[in-house]
Amino acid sequence: MVKNNDEEVTVMKVRRSDRLVDMTRYLLERPRTLISLKFFAQRYDSAKSSISEDLGILKRTFQDRGTGILETVPGAAGGARFIPYILREDAQKFIEQIIHEVNDESRLLPGGYVYLSDLLSRPDVLRQVGRLIATQYLNQDVDTVMTVATKGIPIAQSVATFLNVPFVIVRNDSHITEGSTVSVNYVSGSSKRIEKMELSRRSLKEGAHVLVVDDFMKGGGTLNGMASLIKEFDASLVGMTVFAEGEFSGEHRLVDHYTSLIKVNAVNPNDQTITAQPGNYLTTVFGKEMGSK
Amino acid sequence: MVKNNDEEVTVMKVRRSDRLVDMTRYLLERPRTLISLKFFAQRYDSAKSSISEDLGILKRTFQDRGTGILETVPGAAGGARFIPYILREDAQKFIEQIIHEVNDESRLLPGGYVYLSDLLSRPDVLRQVGRLIATQYLNQDVDTVMTVATKGIPIAQSVATFLNVPFVIVRNDSHITEGSTVSVNYVSGSSKRIEKMELSRRSLKEGAHVLVVDDFMKGGGTLNGMASLIKEFDASLVGMTVFAEGEFSGEHRLVDHYTSLIKVNAVNPNDQTITAQPGNYLTTVFGKEMGSK
Repeated sequence: MVKNNDEEVTVMKVRRSDRLVDMTRYLLERPRTLISLKFFAQRYDSAKSSISEDLGILKRTFQDRGTGILETVPGAAGGARFIPYILREDAQKFIEQIIHEVNDESRLLPGGYVYLSDLLSRPDVLRQVGRLIATQYLNQDVDTVMTVATKGIPIAQSVATFLNVPFVIVRNDSHITEGSTVSVNYVSGSSKRIEKMELSRRSLKEGAHVLVVDDFMKGGGTLNGMASLIKEFDASLVGMTVFAEGEFSGEHRLVDHYTSLIKVNAVNPNDQTITAQPGNYLTTVFGKEMGSK
Repeated sequence: MVKNNDEEVTVMKVRRSDRLVDMTRYLLERPRTLISLKFFAQRYDSAKSSISEDLGILKRTFQDRGTGILETVPGAAGGARFIPYILREDAQKFIEQIIHEVNDESRLLPGGYVYLSDLLSRPDVLRQVGRLIATQYLNQDVDTVMTVATKGIPIAQSVATFLNVPFVIVRNDSHITEGSTVSVNYVSGSSKRIEKMELSRRSLKEGAHVLVVDDFMKGGGTLNGMASLIKEFDASLVGMTVFAEGEFSGEHRLVDHYTSLIKVNAVNPNDQTITAQPGNYLTTVFGKEMGSK
């Protein structure tokens, strides 16, 4: 045994590198899931003590690089759980980058609308949007992410991926392959029209904690409709976050508490300008920055 | 210098571990993107030769674990590019798992439809669906993934994430925030009705290589419509893959070449049974298995 000691050490060294690479991937793909020491020990045919050390390295690196928290649960039944987040600095940089891209007059559409579909179909943008929103609800129970078809879907999916929970899609039109549905009427905040939205009955459980996300909010009517729908299911609303908040000229919005990553205001079809600025995300999630008023 | 040699080695060891963890995350988040040695060398304040060794470890582990290919480009201007794939064995296991979940009579809806929305809104299922479809087009140029609203969107997004390209959403209803659109009429394969679908003009470039995905195919009319739309944009069709293929009682399907992960047939509302089985994905992508006829 003593004779082979050197060789054994070499083998172990190689193994540690491989373990680190594979454990990183494994944990990143399963956010918020407790993976046991035992599982990793068997997967890599290694001692639990070695796995513990590996997890220490992952934890430190994830923290140093702002990737997320690796919660380690001690003891024989212990393991690790990866909770992705974004640092304020990175969130701010991303929001600034988005604002820069949105401030482009070629995005102006008739009626003061802004074309954003290209941004919300880019994997790099969606990944960051999902990471930002997941960070906001880091310490809250979320069982399901809810959105309304069509353009909220990619955001819901990205947030759901970081929170590792399913998402549900509310629709304005009924669809035969959804089975029985529950519907609510709601007042569109901007047009004041009565609309209807519905959700497949089997897609949401009673008592579920639901996070609502959407791409764009004007008067808040759609968000408000989703809040009613959540009540119809006897589920509870955790929070509401939208990618962009538009200018609203009405008296007051139909929702009080919401978070927006960016605010698109002063869309001016006359002089063809768009002014995007940060929404309330950064102060809501990270508080006021030191030095700011 | 000699005196500090031991310490230096220790420091380097720690650094390698940290680099491996962070490089793994960095590359996984940016599939198909060449990351230069220089970038990593600066990021970790390390020699390019050390980075090269790190990449060798990643490459080996990714291969051993069936995570994907790490293409390494040699030379001073070189770097690495991560190309995710799935092994036949893992793909087969996933398809079997899905079939097991689909074969559940409580999924039966009136008219012989099958409820699948829960599966296609689970991040774990969508990740694997995306990985499978991305593997099929591993060696092909894909600039954009196309789907039709609503239920194809999560699949398109997942595939687009693995291919690291944007996706576009074709709609049956026009939407004001999309700007000018191009539309085509198409014949629904199952109902034989004439329908219309449209896509925002600015969302697809001339000459783009487009991969079409959807959740469900019956007669193939929708897929066929998307193929026409691609022609209207002077773009080219790379391929068509659907999550599930349903039973089709018509004369012939409107598309010839398509791939399906699963086939849901013999949906029988009388005796309340569903029979799901593998689609043509495994043989299309991996060829016939040795030993099978």
